[in-house]
Amino acid sequence: MALTLLDYLGIFAFALSGALKGLRKQLDPFGVLVLALATAVGGGTIRDVVLGNIPPYWLSERNYVLLVIAATLIAVGMPRLLERTEGVILFFDAIGLGLYTVIGATKAMEKGLGGVGVVALACVTACGGGMIRDLLAAEVPVVLRKEIYASASILGALLILGLQYTALPSPVSLTASAIVVVVLRLLALRFHWGLPAMKAPVKHDDETRR
Amino acid sequence: MALTLLDYLGIFAFALSGALKGLRKQLDPFGVLVLALATAVGGGTIRDVVLGNIPPYWLSERNYVLLVIAATLIAVGMPRLLERTEGVILFFDAIGLGLYTVIGATKAMEKGLGGVGVVALACVTACGGGMIRDLLAAEVPVVLRKEIYASASILGALLILGLQYTALPSPVSLTASAIVVVVLRLLALRFHWGLPAMKAPVKHDDETRR
Amino acid sequence: MALTLLDYLGIFAFALSGALKGLRKQLDPFGVLVLALATAVGGGTIRDVVLGNIPPYWLSERNYVLLVIAATLIAVGMPRLLERTEGVILFFDAIGLGLYTVIGATKAMEKGLGGVGVVALACVTACGGGMIRDLLAAEVPVVLRKEIYASASILGALLILGLQYTALPSPVSLTASAIVVVVLRLLALRFHWGLPAMKAPVKHDDETRR
Repeated sequence: MALTLLDYLGIFAFALSGALKGLRKQLDPFGVLVLALATAVGGGTIRDVVLGNIPPYWLSERNYVLLVIAATLIAVGMPRLLERTEGVILFFDAIGLGLYTVIGATKAMEKGLGGVGVVALACVTACGGGMIRDLLAAEVPVVLRKEIYASASILGALLILGLQYTALPSPVSLTASAIVVVVLRLLALRFHWGLPAMKAPVKHDDETRR
Repeated sequence: MALTLLDYLGIFAFALSGALKGLRKQLDPFGVLVLALATAVGGGTIRDVVLGNIPPYWLSERNYVLLVIAATLIAVGMPRLLERTEGVILFFDAIGLGLYTVIGATKAMEKGLGGVGVVALACVTACGGGMIRDLLAAEVPVVLRKEIYASASILGALLILGLQYTALPSPVSLTASAIVVVVLRLLALRFHWGLPAMKAPVKHDDETRR
Repeated sequence: MALTLLDYLGIFAFALSGALKGLRKQLDPFGVLVLALATAVGGGTIRDVVLGNIPPYWLSERNYVLLVIAATLIAVGMPRLLERTEGVILFFDAIGLGLYTVIGATKAMEKGLGGVGVVALACVTACGGGMIRDLLAAEVPVVLRKEIYASASILGALLILGLQYTALPSPVSLTASAIVVVVLRLLALRFHWGLPAMKAPVKHDDETRR
């Protein structure tokens, strides 16, 4: 119940962040909807396809899409409000990040995958939507550039794996891991932590030309 | 029979629109072929993967790829002809849009999906190829920007869902829905209808830097 | 045994080429890792999903990801070395191209696909990773532009199909096809062979605006 509520809040925050990007790219209202939807359910869809959970979860459950539509209506109807509340969106987005890390890891473990698969699918579930959002906006995904975002998700997945070797019951270790991801992400936002960008070693021919 | 012919015309128009984009991005002939193929079969491939129809339809049926190769040869051999006949391409592309909306919706219903799944897969089938085409060209997909394209497809899928509650036999309601999509798209082309683009609420840091 | 070694060399070269692109786009270390991983296993992942080989091979086999991590550490720790040894990377990348062409074609034939499916999946396996790498870097995939790369892979796949009608035992014809791909790619690199880019027939509205 509390989990479902968090799930919905996470989806809603992801959808708002997609809708906001759609506004900034000056898409039409339909394009804003597609970006919101792709951001909200894109990561889970890739995870489900890769794990053979066909059809993906949101196609047979109305609430997710209704939340995405609601987020789109807010974005299209009140763009300035959305812009002003970006801090709130980022807060719920961090909750989504922690929650989907745990959901992705859990689904991978249910299918019997080992450490590599668990970390990869936790990260895809939590970060895939944001990457698709940026690809559709023809931008290099922001999570690849300089934010502590996917790295928080990976750390959380590694924690889940490590805690399996302790006496902690599974719900406790999953909750603890989710909280670590959320707190790490919020701290990174608060104190502008980021991984340093690499310096390009040599300018490449390809970089200037498009 | 007539359906197969329309199917082939739709694929061919999709392939030509992909090849034309390849010419404009000054790809090599192989790149033109890949763009034509991705545009023609990309949407149906995503739909089939998501529905578990493995392997996707075009991998075991030679005619689709032959049509794509033919479209590529025309594009590479007669680029100016292709440019001049763009109106004809858009006409058949509209037919493809209507047809693939209906095909996608039908396949989703066959798998027992509800309204959300039917609309999503109708739209993916009809518009996915064009979105992949634009992504491979490193552009924001045109259907997200200001054209009545995906919105026509969504409307058609909703119509299919609505007409299920009437006494109309399925072939009639499917045909009617396809015609609505095609006519709406052609009217939008003829009268330059489009959804209004959203104004960016505040200029974002990310927009200028790439 | 020798095959496994070649497989690992190919993955490693693919990962290095992805990591190098990540450096050039000035991603953070995590972004470099994601680009290395996507380049190394992206093509095989699409192939496995399309063929229904779920979950994809690398999710349940640690060595591939360890090689990708090693490539990322080299890239992040010694960017100038990576830049200077680009010729070596391209050499092993060519071996990967030949090898994955054969692996992709073989897996498609195992699933009973015909010529279209064999060529398509051979090419996706060999070239898909590089295309995803460039998409994540928000660039038009280089293999679509002017290099003999995917065309070498397609030629190799056609050769595999053609040699089935001869008396040659399968291992011989597969090895021969792989060698043809590798040699063709190396010759193209050595002598700067490329397919000519298409001239854009007419400047299009869409090209200037983004």
